[in-house]
Amino acid sequence: MRATVYHGPRDMHIDQVPDSRIQAPTDVVARITHACICGSDLWPYRGFDQIEPGDRMGHEWMGIVEEVGAEVRTIKKGDRVISPFTTSDGTCEFCREGLQSSCVHREFWGGSNDGGQAEAIRVPHADGTLVVVPPSVEGDEHLLKAILTLTDVMGTGYHAAVTAGVRAGSTAAVIGDGAVGLCGVIAAKRLGAERIFIIGHRAQRLKLAQEFGATDVITARDEQAVREVLEKTRGSAQAVLECVGTLDSINMALRMTRPGRSMGLVGVPHASEAPDLIRKFSHNITISGGMAPARAYMPELLQDVIAGKLDPSPVLDMTVNLDGVPAGYAAMDSREAIKVMVRP
Amino acid sequence: MRATVYHGPRDMHIDQVPDSRIQAPTDVVARITHACICGSDLWPYRGFDQIEPGDRMGHEWMGIVEEVGAEVRTIKKGDRVISPFTTSDGTCEFCREGLQSSCVHREFWGGSNDGGQAEAIRVPHADGTLVVVPPSVEGDEHLLKAILTLTDVMGTGYHAAVTAGVRAGSTAAVIGDGAVGLCGVIAAKRLGAERIFIIGHRAQRLKLAQEFGATDVITARDEQAVREVLEKTRGSAQAVLECVGTLDSINMALRMTRPGRSMGLVGVPHASEAPDLIRKFSHNITISGGMAPARAYMPELLQDVIAGKLDPSPVLDMTVNLDGVPAGYAAMDSREAIKVMVRP
Repeated sequence: MRATVYHGPRDMHIDQVPDSRIQAPTDVVARITHACICGSDLWPYRGFDQIEPGDRMGHEWMGIVEEVGAEVRTIKKGDRVISPFTTSDGTCEFCREGLQSSCVHREFWGGSNDGGQAEAIRVPHADGTLVVVPPSVEGDEHLLKAILTLTDVMGTGYHAAVTAGVRAGSTAAVIGDGAVGLCGVIAAKRLGAERIFIIGHRAQRLKLAQEFGATDVITARDEQAVREVLEKTRGSAQAVLECVGTLDSINMALRMTRPGRSMGLVGVPHASEAPDLIRKFSHNITISGGMAPARAYMPELLQDVIAGKLDPSPVLDMTVNLDGVPAGYAAMDSREAIKVMVRP
Repeated sequence: MRATVYHGPRDMHIDQVPDSRIQAPTDVVARITHACICGSDLWPYRGFDQIEPGDRMGHEWMGIVEEVGAEVRTIKKGDRVISPFTTSDGTCEFCREGLQSSCVHREFWGGSNDGGQAEAIRVPHADGTLVVVPPSVEGDEHLLKAILTLTDVMGTGYHAAVTAGVRAGSTAAVIGDGAVGLCGVIAAKRLGAERIFIIGHRAQRLKLAQEFGATDVITARDEQAVREVLEKTRGSAQAVLECVGTLDSINMALRMTRPGRSMGLVGVPHASEAPDLIRKFSHNITISGGMAPARAYMPELLQDVIAGKLDPSPVLDMTVNLDGVPAGYAAMDSREAIKVMVRP
């Protein structure tokens, strides 16, 4: 079969690799119908994260089950399934608490495992990992695209809003106009935020943020952005969604969060210098968030997507086939595309 | 009057300074009967925090009101009062939310304000800042000593336990065997923790921690301490109280906190390098805590102290008069004393 393989920074190839196959009785193998390139895939693409030549790529995918291991109980051949960006056994103490992203059997897609930017994928712990999509959605490409976002970005944006403590009437600030930040706006709106600031720099994305519910656009950077939020909120935002992960972005979040409240950190942190812990300490800013337990949010969000109440599909603004994946990375790297959908 | 004045690192003097006096109608002036030297006073003492020669010292104190400003409503001459380590107006949005440490009129004791290690002190916003101690405690030196701890260490230890999310049945870990850590043990016990780890290095303090309710003593450092806690808890502590503030201590806390739970940070952070944000992110460890709103906890804790249900007084293991303050700093610096009480 064919799969996306990392050869080096800015060097993704579509290589012939061994077919995915059942290795444990709790596995299934799925044919991938839809996948994405993630903003976090750009870290290794740009040479910032250490991964190895030969590593597989892609952790956001949807597919149709083709083979089912002997001990799989809830998934059957022909099911359309979505997967969060980690595997989970569904039974451990963390899975039972809804923190499947810390499952004791957690594995990540890609690397030495199969990746999502490929023709097929082997799924460990299929019962715990996968969510079955009802057959009623078949043929509705728009709906499938919206459902695909639940595998990571929409779940991650939602986690940012939940852990930032957004509630009815909140003033929320979303740092980052990438796909996760845009989903953060949707999530803040869904949780009842009355005023939603989006902090970003690209007009087209900010326009989309406004369509999703952002009420205030801030295009300034760093301290100036903080000042503008403080001025416009008469003090600070009650909930801040950090959707970037750089030191500057974390510091912006700390400095615009209302004393005693939370910033939900969902950008993968890339900071060697300490963030402004004195601000954190001095005003009891809680640094919440982390890798989203996307699996936990899937049933609820899937219901809303199918009911037409939630539509993050516009964040996927470019579509490629498998051969187009390297071009998709380049388009996201240059910020031509917000987020790329792959149709293998 | 006489007051403790910083002349430079390891150089505290008892100087003659102008008498404290009412400057605003919301002020009172109090004669100080009891004060403390704080572990955080050691940062400037050791030359780590920038303060200026001439700055006053001391932010933990109790006294008797001697003069009352014209607009003070709830405090009268002769009242025994305790003060948290910040002033607060009692009426702003943060004070109303119980976060008096972020009061919009927050001031700190010492520096260019009067300090607590002195004969007297001017108190801004006396109605909001001070708590009156009932006259029934007069003459009971043991009780007064216990009450004195509410001005900072006991409130701070309690804040660590509250923000770490200690609840009935919790397994808690307290990092640091200083006075705050020891009060953290008391607080964790008070909140119902069943198992309490204390991580520290000094036998006498660890013994005291056990008297306060610690069930497990860890004397190893850094990664080895983390390993021991992980082994003994079969995974991680459900609530971690960070009572030091160094990078090593913050990292220990992050690495021994159970995925999805909180570490309550109350040690003043002194870290230039980033703590282990990847651990934080990867397992949704919430970094909670901060400067304690000691004022918020005072009424409840004072009631318990007076009722004999809470006695942190053993953390004050050395007493000096005002002339003895420089020796008191030296004793805490060399760790001869856990915490020094000053009787001006």
